[in-house]
Amino acid sequence: MKLARAICLIGLVASLAAIWGGQSQAQNVLGGGIETLVGTPENPLDVGIGIKIDQITSVDQKAENYGAVVILRAEWADPALAFDPEEFGRDIRVFNPSALVEHATDIGAVVPAFVIHNQQSNKWIHESAASLRSDGRVFYVEKSSLTLQAPYFDFRNYPFDTQEFHFDIVSVFPSDYVSYYPLNELSGLGDLLGEEEWILQNDRLETSQVIGLSGRESDQVALVFEGKRHLTYYVIRVFLPMLVLVSVGWALFFLDEYRRRIEIAGGNLLVFVAFNWAISADLPKLGYLTFLDFILQCMFLMTGALIVFNVALRRLKVSGREGTARKLDNYAIKWIYPLGYAAIVGYAVFAYLLVP
Amino acid sequence: MKLARAICLIGLVASLAAIWGGQSQAQNVLGGGIETLVGTPENPLDVGIGIKIDQITSVDQKAENYGAVVILRAEWADPALAFDPEEFGRDIRVFNPSALVEHATDIGAVVPAFVIHNQQSNKWIHESAASLRSDGRVFYVEKSSLTLQAPYFDFRNYPFDTQEFHFDIVSVFPSDYVSYYPLNELSGLGDLLGEEEWILQNDRLETSQVIGLSGRESDQVALVFEGKRHLTYYVIRVFLPMLVLVSVGWALFFLDEYRRRIEIAGGNLLVFVAFNWAISADLPKLGYLTFLDFILQCMFLMTGALIVFNVALRRLKVSGREGTARKLDNYAIKWIYPLGYAAIVGYAVFAYLLVP
Amino acid sequence: MKLARAICLIGLVASLAAIWGGQSQAQNVLGGGIETLVGTPENPLDVGIGIKIDQITSVDQKAENYGAVVILRAEWADPALAFDPEEFGRDIRVFNPSALVEHATDIGAVVPAFVIHNQQSNKWIHESAASLRSDGRVFYVEKSSLTLQAPYFDFRNYPFDTQEFHFDIVSVFPSDYVSYYPLNELSGLGDLLGEEEWILQNDRLETSQVIGLSGRESDQVALVFEGKRHLTYYVIRVFLPMLVLVSVGWALFFLDEYRRRIEIAGGNLLVFVAFNWAISADLPKLGYLTFLDFILQCMFLMTGALIVFNVALRRLKVSGREGTARKLDNYAIKWIYPLGYAAIVGYAVFAYLLVP
Amino acid sequence: MKLARAICLIGLVASLAAIWGGQSQAQNVLGGGIETLVGTPENPLDVGIGIKIDQITSVDQKAENYGAVVILRAEWADPALAFDPEEFGRDIRVFNPSALVEHATDIGAVVPAFVIHNQQSNKWIHESAASLRSDGRVFYVEKSSLTLQAPYFDFRNYPFDTQEFHFDIVSVFPSDYVSYYPLNELSGLGDLLGEEEWILQNDRLETSQVIGLSGRESDQVALVFEGKRHLTYYVIRVFLPMLVLVSVGWALFFLDEYRRRIEIAGGNLLVFVAFNWAISADLPKLGYLTFLDFILQCMFLMTGALIVFNVALRRLKVSGREGTARKLDNYAIKWIYPLGYAAIVGYAVFAYLLVP
Amino acid sequence: MKLARAICLIGLVASLAAIWGGQSQAQNVLGGGIETLVGTPENPLDVGIGIKIDQITSVDQKAENYGAVVILRAEWADPALAFDPEEFGRDIRVFNPSALVEHATDIGAVVPAFVIHNQQSNKWIHESAASLRSDGRVFYVEKSSLTLQAPYFDFRNYPFDTQEFHFDIVSVFPSDYVSYYPLNELSGLGDLLGEEEWILQNDRLETSQVIGLSGRESDQVALVFEGKRHLTYYVIRVFLPMLVLVSVGWALFFLDEYRRRIEIAGGNLLVFVAFNWAISADLPKLGYLTFLDFILQCMFLMTGALIVFNVALRRLKVSGREGTARKLDNYAIKWIYPLGYAAIVGYAVFAYLLVP
Repeated sequence: MKLARAICLIGLVASLAAIWGGQSQAQNVLGGGIETLVGTPENPLDVGIGIKIDQITSVDQKAENYGAVVILRAEWADPALAFDPEEFGRDIRVFNPSALVEHATDIGAVVPAFVIHNQQSNKWIHESAASLRSDGRVFYVEKSSLTLQAPYFDFRNYPFDTQEFHFDIVSVFPSDYVSYYPLNELSGLGDLLGEEEWILQNDRLETSQVIGLSGRESDQVALVFEGKRHLTYYVIRVFLPMLVLVSVGWALFFLDEYRRRIEIAGGNLLVFVAFNWAISADLPKLGYLTFLDFILQCMFLMTGALIVFNVALRRLKVSGREGTARKLDNYAIKWIYPLGYAAIVGYAVFAYLLVP
Repeated sequence: MKLARAICLIGLVASLAAIWGGQSQAQNVLGGGIETLVGTPENPLDVGIGIKIDQITSVDQKAENYGAVVILRAEWADPALAFDPEEFGRDIRVFNPSALVEHATDIGAVVPAFVIHNQQSNKWIHESAASLRSDGRVFYVEKSSLTLQAPYFDFRNYPFDTQEFHFDIVSVFPSDYVSYYPLNELSGLGDLLGEEEWILQNDRLETSQVIGLSGRESDQVALVFEGKRHLTYYVIRVFLPMLVLVSVGWALFFLDEYRRRIEIAGGNLLVFVAFNWAISADLPKLGYLTFLDFILQCMFLMTGALIVFNVALRRLKVSGREGTARKLDNYAIKWIYPLGYAAIVGYAVFAYLLVP
Repeated sequence: MKLARAICLIGLVASLAAIWGGQSQAQNVLGGGIETLVGTPENPLDVGIGIKIDQITSVDQKAENYGAVVILRAEWADPALAFDPEEFGRDIRVFNPSALVEHATDIGAVVPAFVIHNQQSNKWIHESAASLRSDGRVFYVEKSSLTLQAPYFDFRNYPFDTQEFHFDIVSVFPSDYVSYYPLNELSGLGDLLGEEEWILQNDRLETSQVIGLSGRESDQVALVFEGKRHLTYYVIRVFLPMLVLVSVGWALFFLDEYRRRIEIAGGNLLVFVAFNWAISADLPKLGYLTFLDFILQCMFLMTGALIVFNVALRRLKVSGREGTARKLDNYAIKWIYPLGYAAIVGYAVFAYLLVP
Repeated sequence: MKLARAICLIGLVASLAAIWGGQSQAQNVLGGGIETLVGTPENPLDVGIGIKIDQITSVDQKAENYGAVVILRAEWADPALAFDPEEFGRDIRVFNPSALVEHATDIGAVVPAFVIHNQQSNKWIHESAASLRSDGRVFYVEKSSLTLQAPYFDFRNYPFDTQEFHFDIVSVFPSDYVSYYPLNELSGLGDLLGEEEWILQNDRLETSQVIGLSGRESDQVALVFEGKRHLTYYVIRVFLPMLVLVSVGWALFFLDEYRRRIEIAGGNLLVFVAFNWAISADLPKLGYLTFLDFILQCMFLMTGALIVFNVALRRLKVSGREGTARKLDNYAIKWIYPLGYAAIVGYAVFAYLLVP
Repeated sequence: MKLARAICLIGLVASLAAIWGGQSQAQNVLGGGIETLVGTPENPLDVGIGIKIDQITSVDQKAENYGAVVILRAEWADPALAFDPEEFGRDIRVFNPSALVEHATDIGAVVPAFVIHNQQSNKWIHESAASLRSDGRVFYVEKSSLTLQAPYFDFRNYPFDTQEFHFDIVSVFPSDYVSYYPLNELSGLGDLLGEEEWILQNDRLETSQVIGLSGRESDQVALVFEGKRHLTYYVIRVFLPMLVLVSVGWALFFLDEYRRRIEIAGGNLLVFVAFNWAISADLPKLGYLTFLDFILQCMFLMTGALIVFNVALRRLKVSGREGTARKLDNYAIKWIYPLGYAAIVGYAVFAYLLVP
C-alpha cells in the first residue's frame, strides 16, 4: 500500500467533508471532547514544508518534464494528537503514515494532506515515515522518485536559455484551515544531482495561494530553481562546425568561378537542412523560432540567395558583361558574404538575447 | 488497492445484478426498509460528472493516443445513503472510495460506477476520495494519469489538420437506472497543459447514450476538445526548405545546360525521397495521402518528368535540332517549372483544405 | 489484488486437485450435501466464452505481438452455487471475482478458470466483476489491456501479406470436466479499434481442444481475425520512388555515354542498399526473403550487372570496337533494362503472390 | 501479493534458520510430533523441477538477456505434510502458494524454495497454484513472464555464432537438505516460441551444484538451449551488398584511370565506415573482433591501401614512368584486388569459424 | 507489500522517534523491562553489511546511472531480541522482514534500517528474508534489481576513462545509535556480471559517515568499484577509420592539384562533423571537451585551415607565383599535414591522459 498516498487521501476526504459539507469540523471534534481545535478558520493549522531534491534523473525538454528523487518533509503540531506519555509508556509514538492518518481520523484531527501539483508520473516511494510526540508535534518524511511537469520551459533563447523548474506542493485544505510555511533549512538542491547538461541554481522556496482540489484558495509551497545549459556542447557540435563551413565557403568564393560556387553553396544548403533537422530533434515542435532556428533559417535563405546571385552573375558573364559581373562579385565576396552572415548573428543576438 | 477501480467494480457488480438478473433492485432494497428508491427505472439516479484535464503529457499521433493528468468529479444524492447526524455524531462521513462502495452495497444503494470508454493504459491514481452528507449527497474526486485512445485522428489535411480529442465517461448502469448530467463548471482544459505542439481549444462536455458494458444503452458524458498545430515547425522544417530548394533549382535551369540540370534535378529527387521518409516517421502508416504527401509526391513525379524532358531536349540538341530544343526549353523554364509547382500546391490547397 | 488472476488461480488449484490428485471431486462435494454435480466427467460444466476486442493499441511486427483492450465474458450455471432467495433476501448475489472463487471453493463448486494462452505481458485489468443468480447462473465480465503473442505472422508476401491474429482462451480444467461454447453475440472486433495501418476483418470464434496447463486435453475458445495492410503507404514510400528512380535511370541511359551511366547506376546501387536497410528496420530478422526483399535484391543484382556491362562496352569502345559496343548497347537499353526490371517484378508477383 | 515470491521467501527464511542457526531442524519438528523427517542431511527432500519455455518474447543481444514466458513446475513428497483424509473430508487440499508455505511453516515442514539464478527483471506471474495430497505429495505450477540474463553470449563467430541460453533454478536450501531431479517430460521449449531471428534447439535439463544464497553448495536444475541465426538476413543485408560493391569496384578498375579509381575507392571507404557503424548498432561494445568486424576492417584497410597504391601509380605516370605503372597496375587489378579480398575472407573463415 | 521497504520504514520511524523526539529510547525500553540496551549512544548497535553485485544489467552513461541485481546482507546481535528456546520450542525463529520489524518494534528493539543513498528507480525485490537466533543474532538477506545513480562519471579521458561506481548503504540511525562494519567476505562483484563494454574491477567496501535522512551523521558502507572500457570498439569504429581517412587524405595531397585537394578536404570536413555527432550520441551533453572531442575538433579546425591554405596557394598560382606556391606546398604536404595531426594527438595524450 502506498502510504504517502494514504496520507493524502484521507486528508483529502477530511478536507472534502469540511468544505463541501459546509459544516465546520470544529463541531464534530468538539463532540469528541477536545478543547483547542486546530485546522479551523478560527485556528488554522500551521504546517512546515521542506522540499529537498536529491537527484535530477532526467530533463526531457521535448516532453517538458523532469525526473527527480526528492525528500519531502512536513512538520506540524496539533494538540488534538497529544497523548499522555505516562499512560502510553513513552514520549513518542511512531507510525506508518497510513496508521497515523487512521489514528488522526479516529480522533477527528486534521492531517494536512498535500498534492504535488505538477506530478506527472506515478510516484515511487522509496521510504516514508511519521512520528508523533506527546505534545502533538508530528514529523513526516518521504523519499521518492517521480516525473514532474515543467510547463514554464521557453526555448526562445535556445541554447542560451534559462529555464525555470518547479516542484509545487499544494495543500488539499483551503488556506483558512491549513497554512503552509517553508522549511528552508530542509529544502533546496542536493550536491550530487547527477545532471551533466544543466547548471541548476537559484533554488528557493516560494509560498503562494492557488486554487486547490477543493476548488478554493489553498496554500502552496514551491521549490523553484533555474537551469542554464553548459554551452560547450553547442559550441563544438553546432556553432564551430557552422562557423568553419561558412568560413571555408567564403574562402572558396575567392576561387572566382561561378559554377563551382553554386555547387559549394548548394552543398551548404543541404548541410543547413541537415542541421535544421538535427536540432529540431532535441526540442518539441514549437510554435515560434528559437535563437538558433532564426540564425539557421536566415543563413539558409541567404545561401539560397547567394546561389541565385551567382546564377545571375554567370548569365551576365555569358552574355558578355563580364566586367559588370566581376565588379558586383567583388562587392558580394568582400562585403556581402561576411557582413551578411555577421549581420544575421548580430541581429539575432540583439533581438533574442539582449532585448528581454 | 486501487480505490477508484473498486468503485467501478462493485458498481459494475451491482449493475450486473440488476440487469442480467432480470430482477429489479428496488425489491431488494425495499426489503432493506428504505422507502424512496433511486437508481431504478421508476426513479433513475441523477449523477453530475465533471472532467477537468490538468496536463496533456503527450500526444502520440502514430499510436493515436494521448496522455493526460485528469481530475474526475462525480456528485449525486441518494436518500438510501442518508444517515442520522445525531446518532452518528456529525453531519458528514468521509470514506475511502472502496469503503463507500462497501457501505452502499451493504444497504442496497446504487453506486453510479463508470468506465472510461477510451482508456488505453493502466490508470495511475494520484489521489481519490469520497464524502457523504447526512442527506445522502455524495461527492467523489479523483486525480490520475492515464493514456487515452484518440481514434478520431484524421491526417488528411496534415499539417493543417484539426483533430478531435475525447475523454469518454460511460455509466456502467443503463440509462434507465442512472442518468448523467454534465458539471460544466468543474470541467474543461487547465491553463498549463504543458503541450507545445498543439493549440488545444473548443473544450465542451457532450452528453449522449451509447451501448455500455452491460450491453444496453447507457449515459455517457464526454469532454471533447480540438487541437490545431502550431505551423512554425512545419514552415521552417518543411515548407521553407522545399521552397528554397525548388527556387534554387529553377534559377539553376537558367544556366542553360541540359546535363547539369539533370544532375541537379536528380539530387532534388533524392532530397524529396528523404523528405518523404522523414515526414512519414511522424505519422502512422496511413491508408490515404495527406496534404503534405500529395504535394511531395506530385513534386517528386514532376521532378522525374523534368529529368526525362531534359534528356529528350539533349537528344534533340545532339541530333542537331538545337533550335527546337531551345524553344521547348524556354517554355519549360519560364512557364512549366514554376507554374507546374504552383499548380500542384494550388490544387492541393483546393482539394484538401478548401473542399470539406 | 488482481481479482481476475485470483479467479484463475483458485480455479487452477481446484483443477489440480481434481486431476493430479486422481480423486473425483464429486465425492467431496457429495459430502457437502449437493446432489447433481457439474464439472465432473459424468456431468461436465458448460461455459460460454465471449471475447470482444475494443481497441488494438499496437501491432509490433518485429516482436510479433499486438496490444489490445479486451472485454472478456464468461457465463455458466452450477446448481451447487444455487441459493435460497428467501433466506438470503434477494435473488442475486454480487461478488468481487475473488470473493466468488472463495465462496465456490468453500462449497466445493468448480470455477471454470481460464488462461489466455498467448498472453505475453502483464494483464492490466480496468474492471472485473461477477454476479450469481439464485438458480446458480454466473456471469463474469472483465475489461483489461494486455499484449498478445502473434506467432503466426508470415511476411513472405510483404507488403501484400494477410496476417492472422489470435486471442486464445484455454480452460484450466480438462475437457472432461469443463467444456466451452462460444458466445458469438458478445464477441468480435469493436468499431473504433484505432488502428490505421491494418484493415482488420474476418473475426470469428473457433473452438478446439489443446493440451492445457494440467497436461491434458482442454477446451479452447479463440477469437481469430485477419489483417491486411493499407497499401498507400508502401506505394508512396517504396514503389513509386523506386519506379521513378528506375525510369529516370533508364531515360539517362539514352544519353549514350558509358562513363556517366556507370556513375548513375552506382548511385542507384547505394539507393537500393539504403532502401534495403530502411525496409528491414520494419521487420524481424527473417529466415526467408519477402516479396519486397526479392524485388530489391534482384534489382540490386541487375544494377550491379548493368555497371559491369557498361564497363565492358566502354572497353570495347576504347579498344576500337565502338560499333559492336553501340549495337550491344541498343539492345541493352531498349530491351534488357526495362524488360529485365519488368521480368523481376512479374516473376515476384507470380512466385510470391499468385502461387500459394 | 506475489504468491510465488512468498513461497521462495518463507522457504528462504526456513533455510536460513536451518543453516545459519547451526541447529538441525529435525529437532524442532520432532517436538511437533512427526516421526520421519525429510529435508535434513539424514533424509534430504527430493524435488522434481520442470521448466517449460512457452514463448521467447525477445532476445536482446546488446543487453545480453532474453525475455520468456515460462511454466515452472515442482513436485515433492513430505510425510510431514500428510493429513487424515477422513478427518479433513477429502483427499486433497488446494492452496494458494502462500497459504501452503504458511501451513508448512506452521508444522515445521520444509518448502523447497528456489531462486531463478539469472532472473534480471521483475517476474510477472500470470498464474500460480499448489495442491497437497493426503499422503504428502505436493504439486506446484507457475506461469510467468520475465527477463533472464544470458551472460554466455559470445559473438566471435557473428553472424555464424551459436549461443547458449540458460534458465537456472537454484535451491535456496543446500544440497544436504534438498536435492533436485529433473522432470524431463514437463520441460523444454514450446512449439510456438514466436522468435523469428533465432533457430532455438538442443534444449536439455542439466543438474549441477552451485553456491546458493545460503553460501553453501545447493542443487541447480537448468534448462539449457542453443540458438543459431537464420542467415538470410545477413546474406541479403550485408554479404550480398558488400560482394556486389566490391565486384563492381573491381570491374571499374579495368577502366584504367588512376584518378577515377581513387574516387571510387574513396566512396567504398565511406561505405565500409557506414556498414561498420550499422553492424555495431546490433551488438554490445565488445572487447574483441567478430568474424564480420574482422572482414570489414581488413577490407577497409585494403581499400585504403589501394588508394595509396593508385596515388603512387599516378605519380609514376606523371613522372614519365607510365610503363612501370601499367605493369604494376596489371598485377594489382588482375591478381591483388580479387585475391586479396578472397584471402581476407578465407583467412577469416579459417581463423574464426574452423579453428575452435 | 514490499518487505524490505517495511524494514526501512519502521526503522526510520523508530529513528525519527529517537532523534527528533529528543528523548533517549533507552528509557522506553527500560520500561519494557530489558536490561542491556543496544542501539543507544552508550551502547551503539554494531551491524555488518554485505553488498554483493550479481549482475550489471546496464550502464547508461548518458543518464549517468547503472542497473544491478544485488544481494544485500545484514547481520547484528541484539540481546533485546533474544528469546528462551525452551519456551518457544526451537532455537531459531524465522520472519518475514516485515514481521521481524513488527516484533522488534513491539519489544522496543532497534531495527538497523538502511537507505540506498544513490537508488534512482523503484527497487524490485526478488527475495528477502530474516532469521533470529535465540541469543539475539539476526541475519537479513535480500536479492533485488534496481537502477543506481553514478554521479561520479567523468568523461574527460573518454574513451580511455576510468569510472567509479558506487553502491551506498546509509544507516537511517545516526552513528551514535547504529554503527556499520563491512562484511567483506559477502561483498564484491560476481563472476558473471554480463557486462561486455566495461572491465569492472577494484571492488572494495568503504566505510564512512555522511549526513543521513535524520539530518545527523550516519554510518555508510559503500561498495565502490571501477570500470575501464574495452578499447577494441573505439579502435575499430573511431580511431582506425579516422587514421585511414587522414592517411589517404595525405596521400591524395601528393597528386599536386589544389582544386582536388579542396574537394577532398571538404569531404573530410563533413566526415568529421558526422563523427562528431555520432560520438556525442553516446555521451551526455557535457560542459567540457573529452579527449576524443578535443582531437576531433582540432582535426576539424586544421582541415578547415588546410582548405583555406589551398585556396591561397591556388590564388598564388593563378596570379603567376606558382613557384612560391609549390615551395609552400612542399612544406605543408611533407611536414605540416602529418606533423600537425601528430601534434594534435600528442598534445591530447599529454594534456588529457598523462597529466592527472
